[in-house]
Amino acid sequence: MGNTFGHLFRVTTFGESHGGGVGVVIDGCPPLLEISQAEIQAELDRRRPGQSRITTPRQETDTCEILSGVFEGKTLGTPIAILVRNKDTRPQDYQEMAQVYRPSHADATYDAKYGIRNWQGGGRSSARETIGRVAAGAIAKKILQQVAGVEIIAYVRRIKDLEAPIDPNTVTMEQVESNIVRCPHPDYAEKMIALIDQVRRDANSIGGVVECVARNVPKGLGSPVFDKLEADLAKGVMSLPATKGFEIGSGFAGTLLTGQEHNDEFYSENGDIRTVTNRSGGVQGGISNGENIIIRAAFKPTATIGQAQRTVNQAGESTILAAKGRHDPCVLPRAVPMVEAMVALVLCDHLLRDRAQCHLLT
Amino acid sequence: MGNTFGHLFRVTTFGESHGGGVGVVIDGCPPLLEISQAEIQAELDRRRPGQSRITTPRQETDTCEILSGVFEGKTLGTPIAILVRNKDTRPQDYQEMAQVYRPSHADATYDAKYGIRNWQGGGRSSARETIGRVAAGAIAKKILQQVAGVEIIAYVRRIKDLEAPIDPNTVTMEQVESNIVRCPHPDYAEKMIALIDQVRRDANSIGGVVECVARNVPKGLGSPVFDKLEADLAKGVMSLPATKGFEIGSGFAGTLLTGQEHNDEFYSENGDIRTVTNRSGGVQGGISNGENIIIRAAFKPTATIGQAQRTVNQAGESTILAAKGRHDPCVLPRAVPMVEAMVALVLCDHLLRDRAQCHLLT
Amino acid sequence: MGNTFGHLFRVTTFGESHGGGVGVVIDGCPPLLEISQAEIQAELDRRRPGQSRITTPRQETDTCEILSGVFEGKTLGTPIAILVRNKDTRPQDYQEMAQVYRPSHADATYDAKYGIRNWQGGGRSSARETIGRVAAGAIAKKILQQVAGVEIIAYVRRIKDLEAPIDPNTVTMEQVESNIVRCPHPDYAEKMIALIDQVRRDANSIGGVVECVARNVPKGLGSPVFDKLEADLAKGVMSLPATKGFEIGSGFAGTLLTGQEHNDEFYSENGDIRTVTNRSGGVQGGISNGENIIIRAAFKPTATIGQAQRTVNQAGESTILAAKGRHDPCVLPRAVPMVEAMVALVLCDHLLRDRAQCHLLT
Amino acid sequence: MGNTFGHLFRVTTFGESHGGGVGVVIDGCPPLLEISQAEIQAELDRRRPGQSRITTPRQETDTCEILSGVFEGKTLGTPIAILVRNKDTRPQDYQEMAQVYRPSHADATYDAKYGIRNWQGGGRSSARETIGRVAAGAIAKKILQQVAGVEIIAYVRRIKDLEAPIDPNTVTMEQVESNIVRCPHPDYAEKMIALIDQVRRDANSIGGVVECVARNVPKGLGSPVFDKLEADLAKGVMSLPATKGFEIGSGFAGTLLTGQEHNDEFYSENGDIRTVTNRSGGVQGGISNGENIIIRAAFKPTATIGQAQRTVNQAGESTILAAKGRHDPCVLPRAVPMVEAMVALVLCDHLLRDRAQCHLLT
Repeated sequence: MGNTFGHLFRVTTFGESHGGGVGVVIDGCPPLLEISQAEIQAELDRRRPGQSRITTPRQETDTCEILSGVFEGKTLGTPIAILVRNKDTRPQDYQEMAQVYRPSHADATYDAKYGIRNWQGGGRSSARETIGRVAAGAIAKKILQQVAGVEIIAYVRRIKDLEAPIDPNTVTMEQVESNIVRCPHPDYAEKMIALIDQVRRDANSIGGVVECVARNVPKGLGSPVFDKLEADLAKGVMSLPATKGFEIGSGFAGTLLTGQEHNDEFYSENGDIRTVTNRSGGVQGGISNGENIIIRAAFKPTATIGQAQRTVNQAGESTILAAKGRHDPCVLPRAVPMVEAMVALVLCDHLLRDRAQCHLLT
Repeated sequence: MGNTFGHLFRVTTFGESHGGGVGVVIDGCPPLLEISQAEIQAELDRRRPGQSRITTPRQETDTCEILSGVFEGKTLGTPIAILVRNKDTRPQDYQEMAQVYRPSHADATYDAKYGIRNWQGGGRSSARETIGRVAAGAIAKKILQQVAGVEIIAYVRRIKDLEAPIDPNTVTMEQVESNIVRCPHPDYAEKMIALIDQVRRDANSIGGVVECVARNVPKGLGSPVFDKLEADLAKGVMSLPATKGFEIGSGFAGTLLTGQEHNDEFYSENGDIRTVTNRSGGVQGGISNGENIIIRAAFKPTATIGQAQRTVNQAGESTILAAKGRHDPCVLPRAVPMVEAMVALVLCDHLLRDRAQCHLLT
Repeated sequence: MGNTFGHLFRVTTFGESHGGGVGVVIDGCPPLLEISQAEIQAELDRRRPGQSRITTPRQETDTCEILSGVFEGKTLGTPIAILVRNKDTRPQDYQEMAQVYRPSHADATYDAKYGIRNWQGGGRSSARETIGRVAAGAIAKKILQQVAGVEIIAYVRRIKDLEAPIDPNTVTMEQVESNIVRCPHPDYAEKMIALIDQVRRDANSIGGVVECVARNVPKGLGSPVFDKLEADLAKGVMSLPATKGFEIGSGFAGTLLTGQEHNDEFYSENGDIRTVTNRSGGVQGGISNGENIIIRAAFKPTATIGQAQRTVNQAGESTILAAKGRHDPCVLPRAVPMVEAMVALVLCDHLLRDRAQCHLLT
Repeated sequence: MGNTFGHLFRVTTFGESHGGGVGVVIDGCPPLLEISQAEIQAELDRRRPGQSRITTPRQETDTCEILSGVFEGKTLGTPIAILVRNKDTRPQDYQEMAQVYRPSHADATYDAKYGIRNWQGGGRSSARETIGRVAAGAIAKKILQQVAGVEIIAYVRRIKDLEAPIDPNTVTMEQVESNIVRCPHPDYAEKMIALIDQVRRDANSIGGVVECVARNVPKGLGSPVFDKLEADLAKGVMSLPATKGFEIGSGFAGTLLTGQEHNDEFYSENGDIRTVTNRSGGVQGGISNGENIIIRAAFKPTATIGQAQRTVNQAGESTILAAKGRHDPCVLPRAVPMVEAMVALVLCDHLLRDRAQCHLLT
């Protein structure tokens, strides 16, 4: 259990970091969507290791194969299975971690829960698992774009204490992809890259905040009460590795305002009911209101670092670990497409749910 | 869809603010649990309106009736249905809101989604819906307590900018319940109450942060990858009305540290693997590690306020609304048991899931 | 778990035979459906005990109350909770069965599974649980009728060895409801009633076969591969008390034909692709083909009988039981609306599923 | 949707007959189960085409690869993905069926539902999809065997009107596997093989009945009310291609008895409560009672036959089809491992469910 996400657009991922491969099965994709391997690959390329000097040097092309569900360039309405083989594996780098627990990593908890663990490269807890999510997200994005012109753009908003001033309402994918840290503000991007370079040389790591905007989201998505749109977005984002916090709209800062200051007043624009401000972040009462959906995710500094740390081994004996292996000094540049994917999965699922329930009798 | 929470300990709530009543069906509760109406009522009493001068004056005893699933004081293993009748309803107070949308409330989005809305008292989007959650949470708490001695305590950590210094590792339920704002720090509690009093007189509203700690949580709860414990906690909390943010452990502040500073080093204590610090908030890789689980939720200022605000009616015409009805100037004191309930529901569900999968062959 | 049916039109029943009451929560019902308490009550009246001399004499009006989800005569899109109180309870009739297991009844298995059981009137295993199904089925029927003109008619096809010749393509609800055994063939109905009368006098019981036809079902319902329409119909029907078998179309008899004899040849009628014969029973490859859906369910003779039977008590000691209580000598007349309800629930769920997945991009 | 089976032992299959391959993802398998590729392959070999002269001559070794979830010979508790490549594909054989609908096959309904169809070899509606089920069933069987000594044996009970007298209580796997038709009665097996040979020569097809027994099933499996054990068994079996009927225990024949004749009287054997007869088929009230579970499935004659049949093409024009391609004249010999797999999946899922709910507080 726990490896499926979504109710109608159902995504099940599989695979460990070292083993036959990783992948995804997507059940519930509408038929007749034109989709190509290349479109999915383009998203995977944004996520893959080794894409720049500030990511892990592990060399994986992450080439995907569509095993099923697509015929003559179109989806069949049957499960779409996508497989990416593991290639550049170095199990020997992880030999020490077979016995010794990395602080703040999943090694110890996997052992405690399952009594067994593929210790090579993090096994199932590796961020490599997100390949399946990003592949599925590519399809969800295309559906959303085709049905409603939805546009989803994530970007690095903050690295450690370097916070870039960015307007989510106008940011473009081109700006985001114009630099290797994926911060759409060139000056801040430069500073962030320099900071990550420094941290990498120190065999240390840093975190930060990814922000994501979804534009042109139709009104009416979200299923109160438990499957409120913000609740499912929170779950999706908080299921990504290394996340420690989630916000929508005004978030934690919004708690410093009074209701009179915080409320988004309504106005009418060509018969469409809009809000003057958007502290709600595009969602009211768990349902999208047509304004831009804006969320933020806090990513902690990467747990695996080269510096020596005190820890214990499986027997509970104290020891020192200076992790080998190839790791990201900062996960955020590669987390950007992951956040986009999760937002796309949530929105696509709720688009289908809304069509099922609320458009039948009208 | 959207009104069920949990996979094995499944909670389905129903009911609108004004109508026959609100309630819950709990499916999957283990048999032979001793439970009484009084134990459930005790939790509902912490949530009910009119409990103090800083909550809404709506007078509801919220007396619950157990309709099924309990026989001679013990659970049967069959669905437990619990019903609370609506008593002190004043539909006339909401007559204006049948036509006019309250800013930042769910009125407009419910109309957009469903094309119909019970406008009396917020209908389904009323916080009254959480009665079912709190009732189910009372049962989940008891299971957790009996099986593993788990203790769940939430409290008001911050009201607007008044942040109380509280140690989640030592806080007691008695301290929390010693004052009407449910802040376990007496001095801050007093200031908070004064601030809420002031805001109420101003026909305005305020928000803040609820923190929750779960102690004695067994290692191994959580189902990577999508149903990571923090992901389900985030969803549970963010499905509560008025939430805008969620954090676990170090949260957003943790992104300001380096990995070397942030990582929780391991040590061994009587054969038990522990962490020196707890920036992880009791969860690593989506699985509980036996340390205290610590989460925080941001609640925005109440949307419904008595002050005049610009808005539109259903026809899209501009108008001014000064809301009537009886509302909380600050939802946090009553949100405390709601947060506890959601944490309990998540932990109980994952306790059952863990028993099913990970204890079968060992 | 186990008390919810359906994926998008989700029905959760609750309640024991003796206790606060029985009922249902329906989640996922489309908004804006006109529905009244009277329409639901009409279906419950077809199911209720005491409706004729050949059913159990337990006197229950089974009056239902809609607790939520309906406002001013229309569904809200929120959960619809419906409650029926237990009235004519006689726990004393079941005192002996608190200790002694009725042969072929659920007494012993409930004790084995749960370690506890509400022995009054069968508790959760009572057919009284189906009240919630029939109430939900009334709503599902109305949706199906409004969206596609679907008509669902079940009837008694056989009682013991009395099999009536009935054409499912032309049978009417009026014919079915014209007699108390719900067999639309007057002569056979008379014989069946006489047989049940005889069996009741003998303190014995009998079973038979209910057949059900669904007409005007749109093409395309059913979700291969596991949720094939016939698979979900089988599950729905086999979850009713006392069922031992399920067939669709040619059923078991179809296995006596060759492929050349059994296949339904296609022809075209005004541009619509039809089949000459209907051995498929309206479903091919798990998907409705627009022909009449025809299924049959085998109901065993009622387990609880007044005749003395050898059995054991909870301690495993041999004893003799001649059951008291008020029981149906033959469940089939009251099973007719139950079968209709389950067929309606399956079709309605798949109608919503089909709209969600297969009508988004076309 | 529709491609996942099970609640805790969750099986998702993917793949079309002609394409990259077919396979399965199993989520929820307990960790630490020893399992090898060879054990899974052994079951697939019982299902594969070309295994004897009475099955389709399509030559597929159906060699499986375990992509994930197993490490050093043991399950990890993470998703187990298994892939079988399609090898001996002949799309040209199906060129005609791209336009012309085979009577009683899924061609027309897939087109009606999805508006697109992989017409090569039946695409998703091919029995090739069941490879994933059989692979997953091999794992489920092993769990059941290890935890409780459960033994599941299916066999051909009847081919057309040739019904073999077999005692499900004593039949052995060795007897079943001793001949190519998988009927454990040597004389009848010979007659059945001769009949299938004849039908194959006639370019026709036949069906029959598969019976399955599960022995040593623990008491207490099954989740009333909707997920009764017989309901989930019915769904599992009826989701297999070509099934038209399902029975448990006395089945349809049981409706010819009175309650006094049909009821299974209880007795006590070494403190264990048993039944003298087993007309219930091992399940009472939806819960296993410890007796042998006995079910039967009706398989219709194969739809695809070489004889000429009247049908229509996609445009609705009348035409004649004499199907090319390589088909089974009788699916039953290969259906035997499929039925075993579905029974194993249902029992394994309910074993986990029972452990989760009913063994927590006891």
